[in-house]
Amino acid sequence: MNAYVYGYGPEGKERLIVVDLGVTFPDMDTSPGVDVIMADTAWLEANAKRIEAIFITHAHEDHIGALAHLWPKLKKTVYARKFTARIGALKLEEAGLPTDALKVVEPRPKLIEAGPFKVQFVPLSHSIPESSALIIDTPAGRIVHTGDFKLDGAPIVGEPFDPLVWHEIAHEGAGVKVLTCDSTNVFTPQPGRSESTLAEPLKELIAGRKGMVVATTFASNVARLKTLAEAGRAAGRSVCLMGRAMRRMVSAAEETGVLTGFPGTVSPEDAADIPRENLMLIVTGSQGERRAATAQLSRGKYLGISMKEGDSFLFSSRTIPGNERDVIRIMNAFSEMGVDVIDDRGGLYHVSGHANRPDLEAVHDLLRPKMLIPMHGEHRHLREHAKIGSEKGIASEIATNGTMLDLTGTVPKVVEYIETGRTYLDGNVLIGALDGVVRDRIRMALNGHVLITVIIDEDDLPLGEAWVELMGLPERGRSGASLAQLIEDELSGFLEHAPDKVIANDDKMDEAPRRAARQVAMEEIGKKPEVTVVVSRLLAD
Amino acid sequence: MNAYVYGYGPEGKERLIVVDLGVTFPDMDTSPGVDVIMADTAWLEANAKRIEAIFITHAHEDHIGALAHLWPKLKKTVYARKFTARIGALKLEEAGLPTDALKVVEPRPKLIEAGPFKVQFVPLSHSIPESSALIIDTPAGRIVHTGDFKLDGAPIVGEPFDPLVWHEIAHEGAGVKVLTCDSTNVFTPQPGRSESTLAEPLKELIAGRKGMVVATTFASNVARLKTLAEAGRAAGRSVCLMGRAMRRMVSAAEETGVLTGFPGTVSPEDAADIPRENLMLIVTGSQGERRAATAQLSRGKYLGISMKEGDSFLFSSRTIPGNERDVIRIMNAFSEMGVDVIDDRGGLYHVSGHANRPDLEAVHDLLRPKMLIPMHGEHRHLREHAKIGSEKGIASEIATNGTMLDLTGTVPKVVEYIETGRTYLDGNVLIGALDGVVRDRIRMALNGHVLITVIIDEDDLPLGEAWVELMGLPERGRSGASLAQLIEDELSGFLEHAPDKVIANDDKMDEAPRRAARQVAMEEIGKKPEVTVVVSRLLAD
Repeated sequence: MNAYVYGYGPEGKERLIVVDLGVTFPDMDTSPGVDVIMADTAWLEANAKRIEAIFITHAHEDHIGALAHLWPKLKKTVYARKFTARIGALKLEEAGLPTDALKVVEPRPKLIEAGPFKVQFVPLSHSIPESSALIIDTPAGRIVHTGDFKLDGAPIVGEPFDPLVWHEIAHEGAGVKVLTCDSTNVFTPQPGRSESTLAEPLKELIAGRKGMVVATTFASNVARLKTLAEAGRAAGRSVCLMGRAMRRMVSAAEETGVLTGFPGTVSPEDAADIPRENLMLIVTGSQGERRAATAQLSRGKYLGISMKEGDSFLFSSRTIPGNERDVIRIMNAFSEMGVDVIDDRGGLYHVSGHANRPDLEAVHDLLRPKMLIPMHGEHRHLREHAKIGSEKGIASEIATNGTMLDLTGTVPKVVEYIETGRTYLDGNVLIGALDGVVRDRIRMALNGHVLITVIIDEDDLPLGEAWVELMGLPERGRSGASLAQLIEDELSGFLEHAPDKVIANDDKMDEAPRRAARQVAMEEIGKKPEVTVVVSRLLAD
Repeated sequence: MNAYVYGYGPEGKERLIVVDLGVTFPDMDTSPGVDVIMADTAWLEANAKRIEAIFITHAHEDHIGALAHLWPKLKKTVYARKFTARIGALKLEEAGLPTDALKVVEPRPKLIEAGPFKVQFVPLSHSIPESSALIIDTPAGRIVHTGDFKLDGAPIVGEPFDPLVWHEIAHEGAGVKVLTCDSTNVFTPQPGRSESTLAEPLKELIAGRKGMVVATTFASNVARLKTLAEAGRAAGRSVCLMGRAMRRMVSAAEETGVLTGFPGTVSPEDAADIPRENLMLIVTGSQGERRAATAQLSRGKYLGISMKEGDSFLFSSRTIPGNERDVIRIMNAFSEMGVDVIDDRGGLYHVSGHANRPDLEAVHDLLRPKMLIPMHGEHRHLREHAKIGSEKGIASEIATNGTMLDLTGTVPKVVEYIETGRTYLDGNVLIGALDGVVRDRIRMALNGHVLITVIIDEDDLPLGEAWVELMGLPERGRSGASLAQLIEDELSGFLEHAPDKVIANDDKMDEAPRRAARQVAMEEIGKKPEVTVVVSRLLAD
């Protein structure tokens, strides 16, 4: 959920630019029921008047996914290149928001002036079209913010990496003061491979298959989609793109001119009539997403098509850590159908979109920055990247979420920690990660939920017995008797003997039944559930 | 959660033996709040009279972990080798169960007769002492049930792999009819490496470190513990074992004589006084388990010791798929402390305990079974293993959970699917996976929980207003008003206009308020919560 802020000016009055507004995805362990997660922008909102503009480096969800959710809180001009802006516009339109704040920018030498900042977009390869580094010039020096990138001399889609342009960037004026740099693949020791190395292995693979061939990759990796489609066509197969996100990405890429020469495809309706040995599907859901085409195919039919014995399913993708369980579940479902599952184990059918360690070092050497701020990675990636910088004599600092660095000196200096955190989109509501909503969900999931209702009459006397309902708890425990009944019995005893002032006291009538219920449950089933007590007090007429 | 059954005799009256009673572990996605998961033994319980005995191949949790939970349902003699039996006895004792059903068995040539079965334990290497294959002789032929194994000529602890013994087993009588075989590493193309190859790299690694060195691996891998401890001692460090499971495993291994020559260790109390550069800890929790030593060290102090900048933490282990998130969280916490985290990325500091593909093929060739039943793996592993068998002309069949195979002919024949499933230990209660308890927990976690209480008086009229409590839901949604209040208002409207016969009808008084609450929530917050309606009907005196 990338979101970076650069500022220039007198302390506390710096003019600001925001780079990227991304999301990350929830999981059952930490954020059950949540739809997406984004940065908490409270500080930016409080300082909205100081924000000059928003820049989006590329159209991956972790960089642009929060645009429609957070733009209404900031309402600033958004600069992006053509394809990225198109994806951003689709998001704003879907949310019923105006798109006129979105400005399409040409790459360097085009210069955007935003307060004290002069910003250029410089094309770099990545696993989506038009990923760009930002050259941010300030009166205090030049910052290169790489965005997500790899060094690819033949990227299939987009411009090849051009060392001459970067040499120029490194030698203009006083050179590069700060490099804010992608760290994702810092632990990968071999140099990265070009997207174009996949064409031959994929052609061979698909040509050798008998039944239907289905391949999945990220919908936004249109270069890969093209390579896959071409390999399918080369094997004499009709190609069908399945999954809304994929069709949308290809359309956006074609409409904005970043993708050309994509082989002709057939519609899912037509695909259903084509003999399976002549058909190739390219589908969404490489990370096991429940509602995407891959997961649906693993559960049965999708748009009239189902997998059969002798078909092949290719994951032309890497499983992002944390998604293994979902992906493996799908692989096993295909295995049960008799489908051959091919993954990237051999390294032949996928390349990463991020620069590996030697590539990062090449960039350090090319740009010779005074300071290195690693970004885009877990803490261990940032730390490793900073270590590489330090070993080369480049002053490095790890900036965890909320860290404000002073970059005007000769070394990065931590000057402040902004209180920041995560905002959850839950249904259609934005909630704070620490609001307690999700904590309560996790507790109910782990411990179950006991509901107790007690009616107190006009004279502060219990009316009838307490009533207990269980949710997410076994009906019976150790004794074999009904757990709800046992709690009710305990509560009857309590109500019978409770002094009047306890019955009259709302806090005590909440606390005591809760404690009693948890104690009975502990004895009976060995766990302490969450308890909600509802005391209804009848009022005298 | 391994549990296999072999039977011999007239159809429906076969005498049975059970091999292994293991557990698997829950996760938030599918089994929140559950403690451990084991096989549903309903069919075995219904046929308990036909069971001759239980055999345990080795003391890993996925093979012995359910013993104390399921033995009381079966109450049969349990055969295991010395160390395995010791671990089993500890489990039974902890559960307050007798241990006299547990019989210690010497390995082959010792023969156990159990009804029509003659069973021998044959030592094989694995990542725990005394892992054994079972040679199961029946009047219909010989079965080799490998258990978990690798081919290791120098396993540090236990007997090296002896091809002569296996040649003998393959050539006695009519040879091997059925091979039931570990499939875990069928996708690993290179031959397995010996445990003993780790000694040198570990020594070098630890000798080169400056601060405290902490290493984690599975507690039961006592060979690895010994190698780690020796590497620590060689570097002049005092070695301390931390974590109850680890001390227990080493004690059990030493007491039963399977582990000798383990270097002297210091207690955690003494360790706290040793300068960190002279100290090495070997700790539990390689899979990120929340309560184990590794996770505790990542959160702060554990037994008086905490990690510091310049220390090293070694994962001498592989992360089991599904545990990545927890392990990565710990790695990043260490990174934030300035601790160098070393994992098995380079392949130097861990070897697997399972046979790789070429090793499996070697076993096929050595034993020349008529049939191959792949076990221990996901479906895709079993399928791949069966494919290897078929390519060699060995008749293979994939047996998913509940499959009953007839192995008396020349090819395995599926004769029945037993209705089976999963049993959850939840607190101290065994519940069925499909009882609905866990389903309700998942629903509360995803959707939140709304509680509605309504009081109906003696004349079937609503007494006061409905009362709404929320758990795991945002307080306010789209309109900015209180969600609970909005639902209460909606319910007031409903109660006011509901016909008498609706108010008098329990089902309708459950259904209508639920529907109303879900509809209001959908409009306000964009999601439909779980709803519990409690209607209290006052009775006429």
